[in-house]
Amino acid sequence: MKAPIPDATIARLPIYLRCLSDLGSVDESCSSDDLAAAAGVKSAQVRKDFSYLGSYGTRGVGYDVADLTAQLRKVLGLTKPHPVIIVGAGNLGSALANYKAVDTWGFDVASIIDIDEEKVGQPVDGLMVESAHDIAEIVTDRDIVIGLITVPANAAQGVVEQLAGAGVTSILNFAPTVLQAPEGVTVLRVDIAVALGVLAFHRAEDERQASTGSLDFSGL
Amino acid sequence: MKAPIPDATIARLPIYLRCLSDLGSVDESCSSDDLAAAAGVKSAQVRKDFSYLGSYGTRGVGYDVADLTAQLRKVLGLTKPHPVIIVGAGNLGSALANYKAVDTWGFDVASIIDIDEEKVGQPVDGLMVESAHDIAEIVTDRDIVIGLITVPANAAQGVVEQLAGAGVTSILNFAPTVLQAPEGVTVLRVDIAVALGVLAFHRAEDERQASTGSLDFSGL
Repeated sequence: MKAPIPDATIARLPIYLRCLSDLGSVDESCSSDDLAAAAGVKSAQVRKDFSYLGSYGTRGVGYDVADLTAQLRKVLGLTKPHPVIIVGAGNLGSALANYKAVDTWGFDVASIIDIDEEKVGQPVDGLMVESAHDIAEIVTDRDIVIGLITVPANAAQGVVEQLAGAGVTSILNFAPTVLQAPEGVTVLRVDIAVALGVLAFHRAEDERQASTGSLDFSGL
Repeated sequence: MKAPIPDATIARLPIYLRCLSDLGSVDESCSSDDLAAAAGVKSAQVRKDFSYLGSYGTRGVGYDVADLTAQLRKVLGLTKPHPVIIVGAGNLGSALANYKAVDTWGFDVASIIDIDEEKVGQPVDGLMVESAHDIAEIVTDRDIVIGLITVPANAAQGVVEQLAGAGVTSILNFAPTVLQAPEGVTVLRVDIAVALGVLAFHRAEDERQASTGSLDFSGL
């Protein structure tokens, strides 16, 4: 019986998979140093993360790219396509429907819906926007299990309830608000402001270094 | 002299700030348990992360929300507005221009530009799309230091060079591709597929548990 995989490792597994995909067309094998550089972590971290998968690489050779890719896809459940519904056909919903990486990872946008009847019937990346009134039927008929919420913050909790009621059990929330997950439903939040915060930190760090001429944080 | 802040901690600081903002209007203080629950980490992790900032809270009371918020904003360099340019006025660029959290965090969208002359002059959230030909002048005149790249993957590296040449030193890349950062420029990548990967892992885990009736990963 293996140890459970820590959340921080889980969050890095898709990043490693993306890095392998970036490297993969060129190289048959890669070292933990290569992957660490591409993923922005230390190579000891890479080796520790993969040890949770029972994958240790070969000393002097590294990891086989194809094997490791297959193993990561299996752990991440990406071995079969996941039908996805996008709720909210605004700019962000449309951007996600157009986002090729969504297909590449085995996510299949099966429907994009909106509450605004003027948007219903309009084309978005080869799909027609459907009516939010038909959500339950759409989810059931197309075996949809994943929902992406791109509605305004004040409408998002209602959408969670509707999706959960229709049988969706995995939700990615792009609305800038905290949502209560119904029993048995996983809700993850994607907040672009977090990435902006990390970027701002690096800027602030550069400025602190420039003004003090040293690498420490004692000026804080 | 304080120890440098680890990258993993830096990545969590904006998440804590967001959680404090969610809690802040209600409570004057919060425990590491409250923050841990909101941020999805262990409370020992919260205490360790804040110890890098020299912030230890008060036993039995916790952290003062206003103080901790101010300290996080200072470390993250969010005490003054950052003028931002969005390159690419497609769906994602428009979504970012409309994204209220960008304002809330002290990022000020000073310009949105596009290479497509048909988009130039069109309104996006109160701004007019400007021409990509004017990028150097726009960046200089408005003291822009942060760029968000929302162009197609094959155009993104060229945009990095243009932004860097104009004096932008912090770039957030939303294009699904690896970019080379010029000397002195920080490029961070936001990949929505990573969040989808984490969501897929949780689905796969649920299915593995349902089929084996246990919490281990021995079925992998």
